[in-house]
Amino acid sequence: MGRKKLARLDGIDDALRVGPEPGAFDLAGMDRAATPCVKDAATAAELRPLLGDELADLQERLYAEGRTDGTRSVLLVVQGLDTAGKGGIVRHVAGMMDPQGLAIRSFGVPTPEEREHDFLWRIRRALPAPGRIGVFDRSHYEDVLVARVKELVAPEVWEARYDEIVAFERDLVAAGTTIVKVALMVSRDEQYKRLAARLDRPDKLWKYNPSDVDTRLQWDEYQAAYQAVLDRTSIPEAPWYVIPADSKDYARLAVTKLLLDALRSLDLGWPTPDYDVDVEKARLAKTR
Amino acid sequence: MGRKKLARLDGIDDALRVGPEPGAFDLAGMDRAATPCVKDAATAAELRPLLGDELADLQERLYAEGRTDGTRSVLLVVQGLDTAGKGGIVRHVAGMMDPQGLAIRSFGVPTPEEREHDFLWRIRRALPAPGRIGVFDRSHYEDVLVARVKELVAPEVWEARYDEIVAFERDLVAAGTTIVKVALMVSRDEQYKRLAARLDRPDKLWKYNPSDVDTRLQWDEYQAAYQAVLDRTSIPEAPWYVIPADSKDYARLAVTKLLLDALRSLDLGWPTPDYDVDVEKARLAKTR
Repeated sequence: MGRKKLARLDGIDDALRVGPEPGAFDLAGMDRAATPCVKDAATAAELRPLLGDELADLQERLYAEGRTDGTRSVLLVVQGLDTAGKGGIVRHVAGMMDPQGLAIRSFGVPTPEEREHDFLWRIRRALPAPGRIGVFDRSHYEDVLVARVKELVAPEVWEARYDEIVAFERDLVAAGTTIVKVALMVSRDEQYKRLAARLDRPDKLWKYNPSDVDTRLQWDEYQAAYQAVLDRTSIPEAPWYVIPADSKDYARLAVTKLLLDALRSLDLGWPTPDYDVDVEKARLAKTR
Repeated sequence: MGRKKLARLDGIDDALRVGPEPGAFDLAGMDRAATPCVKDAATAAELRPLLGDELADLQERLYAEGRTDGTRSVLLVVQGLDTAGKGGIVRHVAGMMDPQGLAIRSFGVPTPEEREHDFLWRIRRALPAPGRIGVFDRSHYEDVLVARVKELVAPEVWEARYDEIVAFERDLVAAGTTIVKVALMVSRDEQYKRLAARLDRPDKLWKYNPSDVDTRLQWDEYQAAYQAVLDRTSIPEAPWYVIPADSKDYARLAVTKLLLDALRSLDLGWPTPDYDVDVEKARLAKTR
């Protein structure tokens, strides 16, 4: 069951990856209800659990490597507007793995302390240690998204940040971090439905914030800001993946698969022990 | 299915809790293969998933409370000798919840920076924020366990720590943290089997450390140190639970149930919004 469907899923990297040349991807033209490489949302829901065992196994190998002398790590950067499903990615994709090996960090409005530093300061402090899988719910990209749209800094400041981000990520990759950047994209209609649903359910009211409507009123400006991010920061070492996210099941499957691909590319074995196994077996046997 | 078995499980708090009076619990006399309040290990494995939905729901309520004006949090302290199954608790019990709401921290040998401070310094820095469930894989109790057995500090130093820990935990509880302390206890034979298994499997070798045998050679000293912890730090505000851990399935179920009981005791609702729902519905409707 599912082997053929899983094989088709192998095309997802090519289908969702944004090329490095400016204009390689047209955000306005994408179908946000599409399910590339998967028949439909129901199929996506059925396929994701099938990836769980391999994901958990590779995570454990990475963790084991980090516990010995490894330096490698993985960083999943999750971006998207309100209601795009970022929290669901953390819960359902990161939730498939051992929480001990995760380093989850969500980036909100900068604190006074964070504001005293360069915009990458708080990011650097939150990077995953060797062996860990870091998950950023929002990230340094907010500094060229909300900062640009809401004019929190002067244009020449955010303008310079694209190159700073590219340089920062290149260093990170060179130091052993595999970066997976996903931008979850919901349609304007779907965002409406999800915000309305939050206002209709007592158990969802806490997820709603009046600023969500303010942000929605600047839909076009945010889309332009996202387009600039895709144009200027999708480098071969750390490309962007744009995820059609009107279907939560599809988005979760897509991110799971991209993370799995990243782990597979590390060719993870098991660490060689730094002790003599036979000597230890003998020592242990004496304590029987 | 399982309703009767689940009802029996409600007795687990009374069955595993250590009373506050010294000598209330005899560690040497306990059966570490027992499965109190559960028929057997197979039944335990079958029951745990049945607690998942309520656990996740209450965790979300706590998280929501923390995102508004809540100050409450939960702290699960997991102690136990090597191979007792601490990592499995983190993976399988914490793994039942949304990783976003967890604050997991494992405490190893203190770093040079940590050593420059009081033994509670690193603990204070790792406490869960409001709304979070903290999980400590080892904890400040190592400072009266390994520190006592290996004579890392003078006897008068570790001797004073029991009272310091009690005072610290009382403050923590008063400030809104519900503490659940579990000591996982495996038998000497079971520890042998688990260590031998690690040395037999290439994918487990990284979990073995030669110091595990050193620790095993001091079995009696560690048991005495654990007995002292139970005698002197099982206060009514933050009692110890001693978990028979020869069955991993039983230990995981028991900890899940104790954590669930702690969350239930908080009587968690959903936060009242600090905005006017009708006003927001109208604002949103205009953006359709």
